[in-house]
Amino acid sequence: MVHCLIIGAAGMLGSTLARQLLAQRRISGKELSRLTLFDQVSVRLPKAGAAVRVDRETGNFEAPQTASGLVASRPDVIFCLAAVVSGEAERDFDKGYRVNLDATRHLFEAIRKAHEEDGYCPRVVFTSSLAVFGSPLPDIIDDDYALTPRSSYGTQKAICELLLADYSRKGFFDGIGIRLPTICIRPGAPNAAASSFFSAILREPLAGLPATLPVGLSVRHWFASPRAAVGFMIHAAEVNSAALEERRNLTMPGVSATVAEEIEALRRVAGEDAVKLIRHEPDPAIEAIITTWPKAFDAQRALQLGFRPDASFRKIVEAYLEEHAPG
Amino acid sequence: MVHCLIIGAAGMLGSTLARQLLAQRRISGKELSRLTLFDQVSVRLPKAGAAVRVDRETGNFEAPQTASGLVASRPDVIFCLAAVVSGEAERDFDKGYRVNLDATRHLFEAIRKAHEEDGYCPRVVFTSSLAVFGSPLPDIIDDDYALTPRSSYGTQKAICELLLADYSRKGFFDGIGIRLPTICIRPGAPNAAASSFFSAILREPLAGLPATLPVGLSVRHWFASPRAAVGFMIHAAEVNSAALEERRNLTMPGVSATVAEEIEALRRVAGEDAVKLIRHEPDPAIEAIITTWPKAFDAQRALQLGFRPDASFRKIVEAYLEEHAPG
Repeated sequence: MVHCLIIGAAGMLGSTLARQLLAQRRISGKELSRLTLFDQVSVRLPKAGAAVRVDRETGNFEAPQTASGLVASRPDVIFCLAAVVSGEAERDFDKGYRVNLDATRHLFEAIRKAHEEDGYCPRVVFTSSLAVFGSPLPDIIDDDYALTPRSSYGTQKAICELLLADYSRKGFFDGIGIRLPTICIRPGAPNAAASSFFSAILREPLAGLPATLPVGLSVRHWFASPRAAVGFMIHAAEVNSAALEERRNLTMPGVSATVAEEIEALRRVAGEDAVKLIRHEPDPAIEAIITTWPKAFDAQRALQLGFRPDASFRKIVEAYLEEHAPG
Repeated sequence: MVHCLIIGAAGMLGSTLARQLLAQRRISGKELSRLTLFDQVSVRLPKAGAAVRVDRETGNFEAPQTASGLVASRPDVIFCLAAVVSGEAERDFDKGYRVNLDATRHLFEAIRKAHEEDGYCPRVVFTSSLAVFGSPLPDIIDDDYALTPRSSYGTQKAICELLLADYSRKGFFDGIGIRLPTICIRPGAPNAAASSFFSAILREPLAGLPATLPVGLSVRHWFASPRAAVGFMIHAAEVNSAALEERRNLTMPGVSATVAEEIEALRRVAGEDAVKLIRHEPDPAIEAIITTWPKAFDAQRALQLGFRPDASFRKIVEAYLEEHAPG
């Protein structure tokens, strides 16, 4: 009988995680008995079966009492996905720190207080980001490489990783931080993020719409499908944490691909007509940002611990089509 | 005309730094016109010459208004040395985070507010620690190695490094974090720190007193004299920060030495009778702690930026004798 809490359940990954948990109805070999979905806005989900109690909670994650309230029911697994995205954290310095650092720390403190009251010690799965890495970077980054973020968002994620490791070392909870690859293909509309085109140059042509490519074909990056990312989160909830040996934060395995390889996957899945919808319109500002990002990782530790990436970039495209294809 | 502020000026390194600044009366090629010494307790120093105004301030560094008060006079250089030591931060979790994280963040925020008011942008020199590194570690740690602290103190220092880098990237101040080697020979009495013996096995025999060695002769560690450490701080205030290229935190160069090499230096400087005062009394608890600590570094970046370590372990012993020898 496992009770899971998802903080940030209205987001794309949070709601995909919720749907997957309700579909499999089991976690760590036990029955999922209760799922609490928290976000600023109410979470829309298909109806769950009678076997799983689903609670929807809304509130302001920034307020310290919110975390105490969420911990009061002593969930066995807490997925912490709530965050202000990188662009907003860069524009609004105070808000970024308030949500991405202080609110996460409030959560950790609320768990610690509960631990001191009755020995409560949940598994905490924290989603970190490749933004903890910043140039100069080697072409392939190993598990021991320093975190030198070049954004406030990356800084906040790196700080939470450190807090998670310290709280876990002290035994206040059993935490694991997972650095997600860039999610591709992200459903929905193109947005203002510098990384938006990585998904848009596939998603838009697959829907018969034009897309703009602002960088060169040789740009390389690190990807995971939403399905793989949700798989990482569930595996992080289930993995034997003793095997982490105090290194509580892990780079997730992804698929390293160039823009040319993305386009080749599109060609194989959807043909030349789809590829013709991509227009190359170089944007030096986006090129400059992208060159500071990581290209590829040697994610040995996560692989050894059983985290499984997508099999290939083509599989990433096919996974998207299975769930979102118009035809 | 430079105004320097030392936060944590009553400590061993803070007061040594103050004395050195008053002795050289110049920094960054300019005249030192004012020195503000802040600590919880009043700082005792030899009288300064008339050319330098010395202000002594006492207060509670934990209170947010303390930082605002210290920043009000707009010091050009702020040395931030204040910290709860590692043993205390490990015993008192709340206090460690309150002082080593929150108070440092209050300082950074106070500077940011001043920056937003009038463009104030001081050099901030933050003293970090080898405690940001935790096992498993390679025998020689390079400048790109991940920070994986295994203490709350190390976690707090690593978090402040990240904050310092982000505030500097945003232009709120011009920060540099320096990871000091273990200070040797630390003057004063032996204390309860696990590292205490590294100094005690030299300092006590040099004063004709017995000392206990709790670990084996092959234990290797990374050292700097108080003189070298103060040299690092002053160089950090003077170095061209553009050369840091957004990597604002640097491992300082030290002297890598085994306990056997420490003892050999003692023998050469003070003879066999001094060495005979060391009694080997293995302490498995201390051995266990020490094996998680770093042994040696390849501190290329700091060396390239002009930070200068002690020339040898023997020089470390001689430097101590010049300042503290009984005869």
